[in-house]
Amino acid sequence: MANFLGIFTVRNLLGLSLALNLSLVLRVVYESGKDGGPHGFSVEEQRGPSMADMGFGKEAQATQRTRLSASSSCGQDVMEKVINLDHGDPTMYENYWQRMGERTTVVISGWQSMSYFSDVKNPCWFLEPEFAKQVVRLHNVVGNAVTEGRQIVVGTGSSQLFLAALYALAPKDGSEPLSVVSAAPYYSSYPSMTDCLKSGLYKWAGDARIFSKEGPYIELVTSPNNPDGFVRHSMVNRTGGLLVHDLAYYWPQYTPISSAADHDLTLFTVSKATGHAGTRIGWALVKDPEVAKKMIKFIELNTIGVSRDSQLRAAKILEVMTNTSENVGHIGSYESFFWISHHLMAERWQLLRAAVNRSRVFSLPDFTPGFCHFLNQDSQPQPAFAWLKCEDDRVEDCESFLRGYKMLTRGGRHFGVGPKYVRISMLDRDNNFNIFVKRLSAIQS
Amino acid sequence: MANFLGIFTVRNLLGLSLALNLSLVLRVVYESGKDGGPHGFSVEEQRGPSMADMGFGKEAQATQRTRLSASSSCGQDVMEKVINLDHGDPTMYENYWQRMGERTTVVISGWQSMSYFSDVKNPCWFLEPEFAKQVVRLHNVVGNAVTEGRQIVVGTGSSQLFLAALYALAPKDGSEPLSVVSAAPYYSSYPSMTDCLKSGLYKWAGDARIFSKEGPYIELVTSPNNPDGFVRHSMVNRTGGLLVHDLAYYWPQYTPISSAADHDLTLFTVSKATGHAGTRIGWALVKDPEVAKKMIKFIELNTIGVSRDSQLRAAKILEVMTNTSENVGHIGSYESFFWISHHLMAERWQLLRAAVNRSRVFSLPDFTPGFCHFLNQDSQPQPAFAWLKCEDDRVEDCESFLRGYKMLTRGGRHFGVGPKYVRISMLDRDNNFNIFVKRLSAIQS
Repeated sequence: MANFLGIFTVRNLLGLSLALNLSLVLRVVYESGKDGGPHGFSVEEQRGPSMADMGFGKEAQATQRTRLSASSSCGQDVMEKVINLDHGDPTMYENYWQRMGERTTVVISGWQSMSYFSDVKNPCWFLEPEFAKQVVRLHNVVGNAVTEGRQIVVGTGSSQLFLAALYALAPKDGSEPLSVVSAAPYYSSYPSMTDCLKSGLYKWAGDARIFSKEGPYIELVTSPNNPDGFVRHSMVNRTGGLLVHDLAYYWPQYTPISSAADHDLTLFTVSKATGHAGTRIGWALVKDPEVAKKMIKFIELNTIGVSRDSQLRAAKILEVMTNTSENVGHIGSYESFFWISHHLMAERWQLLRAAVNRSRVFSLPDFTPGFCHFLNQDSQPQPAFAWLKCEDDRVEDCESFLRGYKMLTRGGRHFGVGPKYVRISMLDRDNNFNIFVKRLSAIQS
Repeated sequence: MANFLGIFTVRNLLGLSLALNLSLVLRVVYESGKDGGPHGFSVEEQRGPSMADMGFGKEAQATQRTRLSASSSCGQDVMEKVINLDHGDPTMYENYWQRMGERTTVVISGWQSMSYFSDVKNPCWFLEPEFAKQVVRLHNVVGNAVTEGRQIVVGTGSSQLFLAALYALAPKDGSEPLSVVSAAPYYSSYPSMTDCLKSGLYKWAGDARIFSKEGPYIELVTSPNNPDGFVRHSMVNRTGGLLVHDLAYYWPQYTPISSAADHDLTLFTVSKATGHAGTRIGWALVKDPEVAKKMIKFIELNTIGVSRDSQLRAAKILEVMTNTSENVGHIGSYESFFWISHHLMAERWQLLRAAVNRSRVFSLPDFTPGFCHFLNQDSQPQPAFAWLKCEDDRVEDCESFLRGYKMLTRGGRHFGVGPKYVRISMLDRDNNFNIFVKRLSAIQS
């Protein structure tokens, strides 16, 4: 029986892989045609002031400080469109949800969910019971986090929960602000989110690896890490730290699910789990009820709760995800979001690695495969971001360099390391991703 | 023609008033029956830990420090149910939206609004164009704010916009935190929202009337005021202040619309305008693009934008409100949210004033009527909160006193004044409001 299932899974994989290859080829042809112009690529500027304002990148000026040759096979028109892979907008998942049709449609009547209160009996009074229920079901099916004995705290995305965690963990009467650290390269928004209000409660203190100040501190552990995709543990070499685990990317499409996370305070977000970034819903699993209570207090003071409409929508989406993902590891599933997304990400990483190998100007991190208990097989890490290094000695600043080829990325300095590195979103729509790998492979040393 | 319209309006009013009286009586009977028990009132505790956590009140212990007599006509059963009027949950509006049926139903498919970005061409890149359009239409029909030459900034409720305004107005390199003031009685959450993170940018500095520190400051002008309902202007007796106008209650159901507000920075919220508190949507009208840009930056750092689902829902609700409110001042409308809510609030204030007069233990503010350009008639202020004063010399603390009668309110100290005052929500469901006025009128000196 085990053998039969094994064969079945391999066959499924092969069929799916062929189907996806065909689908990708078709999409490139189809999307190219849609983008206008005889060669299929428009010169339309994709981005407004917003992305620059988000601190996610600079304007797409045609500054080409260093420019290497681009092979003629690439074609001039392909080079015209600005490709913005600076931020992690998860639009690649739109296709999946379109294919799922009306199953995740929500209908909200005008008189529903008008009160501030979702559940007056829950310490987190703004948590929709149905959302909480679906969070628990999802974690149980995926096996990526222990939910038992945890207070679920819902937030307006995990950003708000990150700030709530800082508020909850920092003593209110400390003689100085509590240090907040994370090992470089760290998520580029941590420093500005921590310091934007010059709080007297906490203060950004940089790279966890070189942090040596005495006394308590907060360490942010992002695993798999944004930007580089590696699995992480605490890096400060002593006890006494308060840990916040940001597990936004601990889902089967990005990394093998090795075990159920069992930390004191863990953050998740719908945006990276399902692709619904515009819904602004995240959740925290919190062991200490007193810490949870303070996080809830922060969200009261910050936004008086969290949109009930969005929670209801997120609940519906998580429900369908869970329903279609039960038993995936044993029988496979062409319907499962995680199963399909895992294979799409595998495709993308194959295409990216092929482009990088062809170009020979860049390098990517090497990952160790691991056994994924959800997929019930060995699998490769295939992060939501590519952490690309420019290996050419003539290139000092990889972000500027790629901007010269009209590819917007986020440079290493934002993440606390050098400018030889850039972070590139792997979650854009097919069309942009395909232009990106084509353009990258055409840059020759 | 003017006369005819005048008569028509009076007739409408009379008909509506009679209908409402009947409806109120029926509801009391009906709701009483629903609440269980032979006498129609349950002893069920209405509130969980949440309201206490919100800083909105204390537990409903049967502490009866001072208790005056209650007339026998009130009945013992009525006295059993805890009535929570501590917070301003606008559930009275549910009835209206139920009557509007499917007109404000939203249907959101699984693949919609997935991206972080609503409109990359707008500096406020997370603002849904349809929501912005309906905000402008609504202000134009109601006539309560100038929108021309303003950047609309959407927020997760107006709480987030209040914090965004503090961030935007406070200099980043000031030698000390900027003072934030508001005339007492002020909104009870202003001090804790301002100071909860011990920001180095701004600091709560109390009552604007006695503020005398040199240099720049931020003054919060809430008009009509929460808690007391009076129309307000700046109270600090000098120039150099940066004003934030919180006009959450500047709608025809609460106060005459005298003119279109034309300030530098104005805040509104869906929760008090339409009753959809659970949707968590507010908006700011901002004159200076640089201030707007900083507010947008704050919301990026705080929650990476605002739920797109909730904005789409709010847009639909505002659209129906506007459509049914055009020309209300000339022809009246049984469909208009503002028209109907104005008359419901008038009813409630009449009932409350009658109860206060009967009791003779309490007093209420006296308001001056004014011409409402929206309703095209003189009208009375009828605030969303009643600012009740206990006139009995034996009662020191009105909040504790009313708690003895199982009515939860918010005491004056939260608003920067003495404990003789309490704030009482006028926006609860009919059943609770009716028990409240009945119970209040039964307290005799």
